[in-house]
Amino acid sequence: MAQPPFIETHRPTLDAAIRANRERGYWSPYVEAPSRKVYGETAADDGEAAFKALLGKPFALPGHPSNGSTVGKEDSPFGLPLGITYPGTAPADLIAAAQVAMASWAAASADDRAGVCLEILDRVNKRSFEIGHAVMHTTGQAFLMAFQAGGPHAQDRGLEAVAMAHAIQAQTPATALWEKPQGKADPLRMEKTFRIIPRGVSLMIGCSTFPCWNGYPGLFASLATGNPVIVKPHPGAILPLALTVRIAREVLAEAGFDPNVVLLAADEPGQETTKDYVTNPMVRIIDYTGSGTFGEWVRHNAATPLVFTEEAGINPVVITGTDDLKGLCRNLAFSLALYSGQMCTAPQNIFLPKAGIETDQGSKTADEVAESLSIAIDKLLGDAERAAGVCGAVQNPATLARVAEVASLGTVIRPSTPIEGMEGARSATPLLVKVDAVEEATYLTERFGPIAFIIVCDSAEDALERAIRSTAAKGAITALVHGTDPALLEKAEDGFASTGTALSLNLTGGVFVNQSAAFSDYHVSGANPAGNASLTDAAYVASRFRVATSRRHAPAA
Amino acid sequence: MAQPPFIETHRPTLDAAIRANRERGYWSPYVEAPSRKVYGETAADDGEAAFKALLGKPFALPGHPSNGSTVGKEDSPFGLPLGITYPGTAPADLIAAAQVAMASWAAASADDRAGVCLEILDRVNKRSFEIGHAVMHTTGQAFLMAFQAGGPHAQDRGLEAVAMAHAIQAQTPATALWEKPQGKADPLRMEKTFRIIPRGVSLMIGCSTFPCWNGYPGLFASLATGNPVIVKPHPGAILPLALTVRIAREVLAEAGFDPNVVLLAADEPGQETTKDYVTNPMVRIIDYTGSGTFGEWVRHNAATPLVFTEEAGINPVVITGTDDLKGLCRNLAFSLALYSGQMCTAPQNIFLPKAGIETDQGSKTADEVAESLSIAIDKLLGDAERAAGVCGAVQNPATLARVAEVASLGTVIRPSTPIEGMEGARSATPLLVKVDAVEEATYLTERFGPIAFIIVCDSAEDALERAIRSTAAKGAITALVHGTDPALLEKAEDGFASTGTALSLNLTGGVFVNQSAAFSDYHVSGANPAGNASLTDAAYVASRFRVATSRRHAPAA
Repeated sequence: MAQPPFIETHRPTLDAAIRANRERGYWSPYVEAPSRKVYGETAADDGEAAFKALLGKPFALPGHPSNGSTVGKEDSPFGLPLGITYPGTAPADLIAAAQVAMASWAAASADDRAGVCLEILDRVNKRSFEIGHAVMHTTGQAFLMAFQAGGPHAQDRGLEAVAMAHAIQAQTPATALWEKPQGKADPLRMEKTFRIIPRGVSLMIGCSTFPCWNGYPGLFASLATGNPVIVKPHPGAILPLALTVRIAREVLAEAGFDPNVVLLAADEPGQETTKDYVTNPMVRIIDYTGSGTFGEWVRHNAATPLVFTEEAGINPVVITGTDDLKGLCRNLAFSLALYSGQMCTAPQNIFLPKAGIETDQGSKTADEVAESLSIAIDKLLGDAERAAGVCGAVQNPATLARVAEVASLGTVIRPSTPIEGMEGARSATPLLVKVDAVEEATYLTERFGPIAFIIVCDSAEDALERAIRSTAAKGAITALVHGTDPALLEKAEDGFASTGTALSLNLTGGVFVNQSAAFSDYHVSGANPAGNASLTDAAYVASRFRVATSRRHAPAA
Repeated sequence: MAQPPFIETHRPTLDAAIRANRERGYWSPYVEAPSRKVYGETAADDGEAAFKALLGKPFALPGHPSNGSTVGKEDSPFGLPLGITYPGTAPADLIAAAQVAMASWAAASADDRAGVCLEILDRVNKRSFEIGHAVMHTTGQAFLMAFQAGGPHAQDRGLEAVAMAHAIQAQTPATALWEKPQGKADPLRMEKTFRIIPRGVSLMIGCSTFPCWNGYPGLFASLATGNPVIVKPHPGAILPLALTVRIAREVLAEAGFDPNVVLLAADEPGQETTKDYVTNPMVRIIDYTGSGTFGEWVRHNAATPLVFTEEAGINPVVITGTDDLKGLCRNLAFSLALYSGQMCTAPQNIFLPKAGIETDQGSKTADEVAESLSIAIDKLLGDAERAAGVCGAVQNPATLARVAEVASLGTVIRPSTPIEGMEGARSATPLLVKVDAVEEATYLTERFGPIAFIIVCDSAEDALERAIRSTAAKGAITALVHGTDPALLEKAEDGFASTGTALSLNLTGGVFVNQSAAFSDYHVSGANPAGNASLTDAAYVASRFRVATSRRHAPAA
């Protein structure tokens, strides 16, 4: 089959992405608005219809290895029956298929591989509505968020990884002439060739809340550097990645590669296969997003030392003062409510000085600030439809149980409630619980979901120090600090930098601490227990390949 | 103390080194000839005198932590008594001192750190004669080699690492303006700052044969990325690294940094401290060069996952034909004899087809080729003074015992003998032993030292396949293939590339398979058991630091 010149089509995008990775301003080629003007007049309806057509059937993956069985027990947090099954596979067979597929993919140029990756992303982008519904009904995100986080924003992160991988590979030239002077004698002249050699089979272990956004970087970083990838979705969120795998396989085949360069390892609760892949010595690269407990198991039991993780942290907020209390509360309320706190970047611990803070509305006690925040949440969620759109549904039933349990651990400032009109779905608004700073056992545990603690501290300095310490000890991806004292803000910058926590200062507008923008924000630093890798820095791609050299005498000049 | 503008002085060198890393042609700022014109009229005598002044005394390291004891039992392979001692230190104290020293070093800019590193290298370069004597009398290298490999060539590899580290750090800008359009509304504008944050205390474990050449890359890669480094020399080769540490500490202090950014962890046989450092969780980066056995221990027992190793391989030569038999034999004889085969890049296994090969001198049987090689070695080493200059002395007494043992494992083609005139030193010329290809237990074991096997194979293809397989199974850093059939050479290139073995083809002149040139040849690929890292690719530096982000609203434009 003739290979379409995918890299020719996509080189301007690749070049722009490489530049964006270096400049780190705002840039995105994938439009985040679910706009008919961009995606087509019928795109929204077509996407929904395509999603609905998948329900209640085996998911077709032509040519994909299978042991003949089917697996899959996904459950929509919104209550919609999915009933989709996927090919069952034996891990050893899938790994063997990936190894066979690797040869031609490894031999392709970095340019050609980037072209294929960008074509995959482009086709995935065109299917953002369909994928959005798939993300919605596996993760529980409301549709707009599912569309954006599972669609264009995830595609951005995939492209970011392709661009970083391409830039690092391009640092090694394909050939070089080495000419060493020898005084009056002829120089020594050697012709050298350098080849990028991939590491081997790559395993991407997806999570249940952001299967695309957290999964694409590892998938595309490994693909772009020549490694075949086994995509192992969370059993609760297979569909978005299955759609991605199918598109990837179509593009690979069209480009003349073995489609088994990308494989799907679906499984279901009670029959998980992840450990079989992790411990297989033929698996040479692992990308993992998920709980710290299983992340630790992966890091310690993987046959390969090359493991990239995003695990879990406890993200702090420190409020020491503000000149926009209303903006602060509105902004933070949204951060707490968005997707019912099921974001790895959502805040959990809000540290406040006991004596209160100075604001544009005068001095406010800690209780008053907590109360203002609680009111802002109520206001944000006062309209049921808007509440459903912000909070979405709760992915895992265990999260609802956790909310109930935590309510007894302190003084409830704001109770969590189900969202009106979402009957049949699992829903919960943010729970706010006040505790004293000494109650570390309560708040220095990750409480995933719509749960936040107001932590009353001795002083602003005490609040800041406790927050920084917590990120070093327990890990954190984000931190938010409000303050008007430049010295305190500087101390915050130094402190959170030292623990590798991405810091936002004084957010009162339309940017939220939970947001991480590709090409600009590094997601996870790798410098604290919240994960050992960063999306997407050079370290995330550089060890996914090696360089082999060959040299011989060059003819005299 | 005012900080001299080291980066100002050295920026042209840094820029040129960064360019050289990208272009990978010949480049070196440090002159390899021990020339009076370059190093100064009296440099040779001064260097020797400086070395002699070190003998029989405690080595002075002003301000260096010490537990009051002294350690050190180095032994010159040439028989010269050294009698130098070094400060004894408790690992926990040294690690604590490094942690204290880290703060200001971490806060320095990548530019300033590079400037300090280049100033260290520059001063080390000026002391190349003194260091050359120190390398000679610890490793057993003849002086010229000790000067070059311990001096300018090692400095090249150090600079290569600094340049790679600087280039990767420079990919992240210090600041960025993120401006996201909001349709008709004002754009969202955020100011972002990015800081390089080092990983923590770095440990460099040196080897006994190339303490500087193999040690500088890890030392300087970690330093350039902001990590303090504990230099843990092999107990048999402390002095070259002690001199380096002393110079580094002087430069650091002059630049206003805590000299404990670089520390010396000397020890002596029977009281080794390496394991105490490796297993300490405060040690965050480890660079190791040495045996595969201890390398495996380090990889499996290190508290940190960030371990870079060069271990050991078995380097093959495959001879399938040549149009310059004389050049082939002369070239290979030198590769086998140089430093008595104590190079990690020296060949051990010479695969030959049973039926012999075609040459410019007609068909030659395997035995005839072996005989020609043996004669070439005799010729090279026929003059005792030249033999001493090529072979040097044998670093470890165990190597001599190994030579004696291996002689009984096959048909001796050329016996190993001591070198005339080197009485009092440990010396040995290359041993050539012929074995059949089935004797894998004999030749698929690393036999470090002046030991080579002539391995008689069924055919040229069989020879090549066995050689390639051996590199995958046992690891290899280099391979040398001689042949005139382009298809076979292509197969060799594909095969050795797939195992990450640096291949040289048809070397018959003044370039040898054991040579690896900084800025051009990657040393070790990291893709086979000979080591998990490569000098110096992006992966070698990229994970030695992380990036911390801070963002806040930017004023409206």
